[in-house]
Amino acid sequence: MIDYRMNWNKEAENAVHGMMEEAYGRLVEEREQGIAGYYNLPEDAQLIVEEVEAMAASRESWKSAETIVVVGIGGSSLGAKAVDRALRPLQEGLKRLLFLENPDTLEVRAKLAAIDPEKSLFIVISKSGGTIETTSLFKLLIAHFALEVDGKDRERVIVITDEGSILYRYAEKHALQTYLIPDNVGGRFSVLSAVGVVPLTLAGFDTRALLQGAEKMVKGFFARRQDHLLRKGAFLATHWRQYRMNVLFAYGTYLEDLTKWYVQLWGESLGKIDAFGNRVGLTPLGHIGSVDQHSFLQLIMEGPRDKTVSFLKVERFGEELEIPRLSLDFIEKNDYINGHTLHDLLKGECDATMESIRKEGVPTDAIVMDRLHAENIGELILYYELLTSIVGAMLHIDTYNQPGVELGKKILVKKFQEKGSENG
Amino acid sequence: MIDYRMNWNKEAENAVHGMMEEAYGRLVEEREQGIAGYYNLPEDAQLIVEEVEAMAASRESWKSAETIVVVGIGGSSLGAKAVDRALRPLQEGLKRLLFLENPDTLEVRAKLAAIDPEKSLFIVISKSGGTIETTSLFKLLIAHFALEVDGKDRERVIVITDEGSILYRYAEKHALQTYLIPDNVGGRFSVLSAVGVVPLTLAGFDTRALLQGAEKMVKGFFARRQDHLLRKGAFLATHWRQYRMNVLFAYGTYLEDLTKWYVQLWGESLGKIDAFGNRVGLTPLGHIGSVDQHSFLQLIMEGPRDKTVSFLKVERFGEELEIPRLSLDFIEKNDYINGHTLHDLLKGECDATMESIRKEGVPTDAIVMDRLHAENIGELILYYELLTSIVGAMLHIDTYNQPGVELGKKILVKKFQEKGSENG
Repeated sequence: MIDYRMNWNKEAENAVHGMMEEAYGRLVEEREQGIAGYYNLPEDAQLIVEEVEAMAASRESWKSAETIVVVGIGGSSLGAKAVDRALRPLQEGLKRLLFLENPDTLEVRAKLAAIDPEKSLFIVISKSGGTIETTSLFKLLIAHFALEVDGKDRERVIVITDEGSILYRYAEKHALQTYLIPDNVGGRFSVLSAVGVVPLTLAGFDTRALLQGAEKMVKGFFARRQDHLLRKGAFLATHWRQYRMNVLFAYGTYLEDLTKWYVQLWGESLGKIDAFGNRVGLTPLGHIGSVDQHSFLQLIMEGPRDKTVSFLKVERFGEELEIPRLSLDFIEKNDYINGHTLHDLLKGECDATMESIRKEGVPTDAIVMDRLHAENIGELILYYELLTSIVGAMLHIDTYNQPGVELGKKILVKKFQEKGSENG
Repeated sequence: MIDYRMNWNKEAENAVHGMMEEAYGRLVEEREQGIAGYYNLPEDAQLIVEEVEAMAASRESWKSAETIVVVGIGGSSLGAKAVDRALRPLQEGLKRLLFLENPDTLEVRAKLAAIDPEKSLFIVISKSGGTIETTSLFKLLIAHFALEVDGKDRERVIVITDEGSILYRYAEKHALQTYLIPDNVGGRFSVLSAVGVVPLTLAGFDTRALLQGAEKMVKGFFARRQDHLLRKGAFLATHWRQYRMNVLFAYGTYLEDLTKWYVQLWGESLGKIDAFGNRVGLTPLGHIGSVDQHSFLQLIMEGPRDKTVSFLKVERFGEELEIPRLSLDFIEKNDYINGHTLHDLLKGECDATMESIRKEGVPTDAIVMDRLHAENIGELILYYELLTSIVGAMLHIDTYNQPGVELGKKILVKKFQEKGSENG
């Protein structure tokens, strides 16, 4: 269960009623007409879980694998990484997930050294099929481990891509196990498609619960039981020129990759040229409490009024650590915390920071998970995806494309082609 | 060697000449009058390196320690973490550094399980001496490992704090090895004081080279050989209402914690109420290339013109990974990269992204390190500290205080005291 609490000005709600209805209508349309496909993933991807489980039960190489190597970058890795990082500390016996994403020499070398190819599966993920980082890292894997995709290692290599992409055709030629990303699901919305569900299921996570939480949120939203999302979207969309940034302040170290996933989701979706030719957009920032109170809080409190802050906290864990009833000489003033749990301290920091920020007049809201588990993480994923679509609709932009990243790709190819002809 | 290249509009330089001279004058004054002490650390901390090395040579418990546990949060850990993460992959035989900072139950439990107290040193760092997270985690360590600070474990516990602080008095009473943080060095400027130098030296890093690089930058700046810093500061300070955010886009996974250190340095220093009562400040964002091109680039390219972007890249490594000359069926279009190194790809991504952003009219600059080594990291640390002081001077704020974080601390204590009296 997740509780959503908004602390910003609600007076203007009547004024934005029409905007909320219009955005709701657009999301209904997107779902019905298949403009965006992520709405259906919570239901559709249940089949993928079953397929993967059946395959894993029947193939010895899948059953005995100890490491799942995911080769993918951006939307092809961030979602699964976020779920893995958030839930792994809570479950024993999971297979290791290892992500090859950034073309960083030191990182890749260290990860190659940590892979035993005989005990690994390799999942190559690219929506377009031609992501240069991903195909380069795949080539490195093939060469480094002398992988025989046409021979003994065929079963170990799995491909996830769009139907008909160049990677799809590669996989087809070599008869590799392939899972599809629906056409109408962009990378940053794809965590509940095969992109996230296949590696997470193989690792042993409860992806059924993940999908159930997500489905609950989608159904609730379209049944108008989650109108707080429309209100939050309306506030953000009508105030974005003042509050240009939204800080997701997540209390818990293991939530860090979830904040990175959120940053991609918003950054690529909401930074756009709108239907009227204006540059619009909200800038997402991820921070971790309480550690970043010692880093970023001063700026929120006394800096320009250009941010909203969303707090994410977890109400309780199963096992707690108690702060010992020890008194340190001369530091007795801190004894007020003795006997409380470490998690009480973390939550106390969250509440105190939220209250101090609110007193300064900064708009805040809180997302409160009763527990950290797969169902809540699934719900949270859909919460942010729906919010993104809502704000996109209200800003009159195409939430689902990313034309701004193409120029850099072209320049990259040109630079290397020029180098090649210089050398040649 | 680091090369600093600015690509933003230089035409206005004459108009800000006076501002640059005034800021330079203020930094000279800060150094001469001891208003800020970090200017002297590169020279002064050399003595700390010697002391630590001598002590480590004479104490068996220090010599044989395999893990250095740092208990500290914010400015007490970020700097050492950043240096550790950036340089560790390049050096063998280092002792492990383990940071206990966030009061996150899952993280702390995992770290406690990874500590062998007989083979560890424990460094407790707090400038004020009373940081609630730090003293709570120290209490947990004492209880969990039954540490005898007055007995067998006295040598294993090291304290770093301000002279006369409550933690200083605790250490004095228990005769613990203590290193001081100069009064006029704030947490976020303290990485080259004992705060960073003691753990990094104990771990085996070349802190002499780190300090040398830093000293070169300080001396160069005050000898007017680094005026590009004043120009960059003037641009940022005169444009901050338009360009409210600066993105540090660092190309290399291991530079991530350096971007976090930069975020704290700017966030706490530059988000302030100025001398005239206005809320001012620049918001710092850290991103990692090329991975975050798949996350944040779209927003920079097509979103609002409210950001400057600073690129950080490393020219070359010693050992490289070559992208194999393999052609994947149907993906031949990516063969242009074959035979180049992975680092060529990363650098190519950096250059292409910078060019595409610049074409859009976004102000950019580049910080280019010839190699990744301690001296360059030291220089970079001072580069950012000086830049922070310059922008602070130009914004007419107190760069070195952080009054905005106090309210939350008071609310926290009050919440727990109320709970205590309810229970009592």
